Amino acid sequence: MAKQISELKLGILGGGQLGRMLIQEAINYNLTTLVLDPDADAPCKHIANYFENGSITDYDTVYNFGKKADIITIEIEKVNVEALEQLEKEGKKVFPQSRVIRLIQDKGIQKQFFKENDIPTAPFMLVNSKDDLTNGKFPFPYILKLRKDGYDGKGVMKINDASDVENAFQAPTLIEELVHFEKEIAVIVARNANGDVKTFPMVEMEFNPEANLVEFLISPSTYPESIQERAEKIAKDIAAALNITGILAVEMFITKHGDILVNELAPRPHNSGHQTIEGNYVSQFGQHLRAIFNLPLGDTRSISNAIMVNVLGEKGHDGVAKYDGLEKILSIDGVYVHLYGKKYTKPFRKMGHLTIIDQNREKAIEKARFVQQTLKVIS
Amino acid sequence: MAKQISELKLGILGGGQLGRMLIQEAINYNLTTLVLDPDADAPCKHIANYFENGSITDYDTVYNFGKKADIITIEIEKVNVEALEQLEKEGKKVFPQSRVIRLIQDKGIQKQFFKENDIPTAPFMLVNSKDDLTNGKFPFPYILKLRKDGYDGKGVMKINDASDVENAFQAPTLIEELVHFEKEIAVIVARNANGDVKTFPMVEMEFNPEANLVEFLISPSTYPESIQERAEKIAKDIAAALNITGILAVEMFITKHGDILVNELAPRPHNSGHQTIEGNYVSQFGQHLRAIFNLPLGDTRSISNAIMVNVLGEKGHDGVAKYDGLEKILSIDGVYVHLYGKKYTKPFRKMGHLTIIDQNREKAIEKARFVQQTLKVIS
Repeated sequence: MAKQISELKLGILGGGQLGRMLIQEAINYNLTTLVLDPDADAPCKHIANYFENGSITDYDTVYNFGKKADIITIEIEKVNVEALEQLEKEGKKVFPQSRVIRLIQDKGIQKQFFKENDIPTAPFMLVNSKDDLTNGKFPFPYILKLRKDGYDGKGVMKINDASDVENAFQAPTLIEELVHFEKEIAVIVARNANGDVKTFPMVEMEFNPEANLVEFLISPSTYPESIQERAEKIAKDIAAALNITGILAVEMFITKHGDILVNELAPRPHNSGHQTIEGNYVSQFGQHLRAIFNLPLGDTRSISNAIMVNVLGEKGHDGVAKYDGLEKILSIDGVYVHLYGKKYTKPFRKMGHLTIIDQNREKAIEKARFVQQTLKVIS
Repeated sequence: MAKQISELKLGILGGGQLGRMLIQEAINYNLTTLVLDPDADAPCKHIANYFENGSITDYDTVYNFGKKADIITIEIEKVNVEALEQLEKEGKKVFPQSRVIRLIQDKGIQKQFFKENDIPTAPFMLVNSKDDLTNGKFPFPYILKLRKDGYDGKGVMKINDASDVENAFQAPTLIEELVHFEKEIAVIVARNANGDVKTFPMVEMEFNPEANLVEFLISPSTYPESIQERAEKIAKDIAAALNITGILAVEMFITKHGDILVNELAPRPHNSGHQTIEGNYVSQFGQHLRAIFNLPLGDTRSISNAIMVNVLGEKGHDGVAKYDGLEKILSIDGVYVHLYGKKYTKPFRKMGHLTIIDQNREKAIEKARFVQQTLKVIS
């Protein structure tokens, strides 16, 4: 008999909230979990079987950590890929595969991958010299993105005219046409090593314009079925083209003309899937474990309308976190609290999330607005 | 502002599967968890913030452990109550309260409590001398129970006639009239310090006659509403009479005449509530935390039909546990696996449980029978 999931050691690069929720699920399978994180007080610290404080971008640290595990996964893309390549060569399972992480780490390569595979995405151009920013191939205004290390809105700027070019990033970038979108949506797709593929229902996102973080997510979407099916097909096409093992979050725009354009990929559990813990028969975390351990994929259907609200650090508060209004929101039926175990808050830091479940969609939204205004992370 | 749940330390006496599932839920509230268990490899070992290997029945060990926590709870009744009384005197919160644990530890006192509070229960008699076993006050056959330390069917024997009396327990016992019951049922009730009380829907249990363990549990019950309401009222009456803070599992019999008789109490999360994790809006673990931290109680309604199947060690297998058939059962929609992190299996040891969710009750039962026959814990 091959080694079973309960006998295997799962190494996780990154010990933040995504790793934390993955471990909460992994406990159900007796999985032994090993976590590497540069923060000595990372959210996973106390719930992993083994926690190592170290850099996830340093070759030796990642390599030596990976040697201790049977299967290695990530909760953030910014990891040392060379170490993962070496571990793969030595027979370790790395899911998502190192080549997928490498591709997704560089938004330039990601965009070229979309183009080569007929995945709809906004027109773009890799920036090779400063001249590219002003030579008129892309008329102002446009979006300028760092090719690497951008996340949660960091590494993205709007270039309105030539005067903005002075402040442009000093690292490799790409230009993207400004998309006039109606809605940001996401589909999470899972693929196991057998090649089985399943998508979660499409969800709609609302962003906090100031923090540029997902603040409000509605599942499932109420867009026409034809649009949902198109979005889900795009996600499946990408998973197939990448030949990925694991889950993949596909963030997309729906334009005012009803077109769907792929924005970005994340080859791991993602903020746009947190509501699956209570809102769907299988959660994104459970599905990721099933995918990387090559188990049958779970039932992705929605149980109920589910709204996810990020709990962000209040403006003007910096220090040991306190949660004001917790009792009030827990008095409402169908409100689920997920705090991430971060000791310190700062403005807009992701400190947790709330999921609101209600069979009535309007009621769910109403409750979500209330809890969002009621729970405050202060210091 | 009073100390918040995320700033408090929860001490748990016992680090088995009940503590483990309580911690899985506690993670969502940033709770700091401390666990004391006599088994150095207890299921909670790796997921508690602090794990102490020590006796939960030794005064000094429990007292010194309790000093480190803000709130102390239990996952098993057999703990040192004197230490908990002392901790209460010194201002620690102990939920359930030490007096409740003391009462429930002794089935004789438990039965007298039922009698004094007009709680329906089978006729009984405390055994004061060996003569009581044969003096005919209770005609054969009857049930003989150890007053203390019985659990999972241990400490209970049927006395058919005078010849069985020779083998009777050599410790304080009580005699109970043999109940000809139609069904064993349970209601879990929660009560917080504010005095708010909520019950989970009544569930039906099926026992493994050989192991005398709950093997199969169906939620919610399909008994007439009048019977369910009566059972839930009995549970609430007991919670009120006990003035308990926390959750309380009330195991009952429904007799062939439709009477309800209370069998036993467990003042903690209980095997008859495991299906609430997926089957109800709030789980018994979430509800226990809400109760002991005096938060509003959660919504106990069922989301779906839910069947709970205990995963017991296979007969003839003793050693490091392997789970045969896991892949097969995960290919069925609505099957949830909870393994308890126990390294070694032995016949009938509780190694985990499965929950099966299906909107169609008959289908749920059919799936449950299949998964029960398919997943085997072998060595």
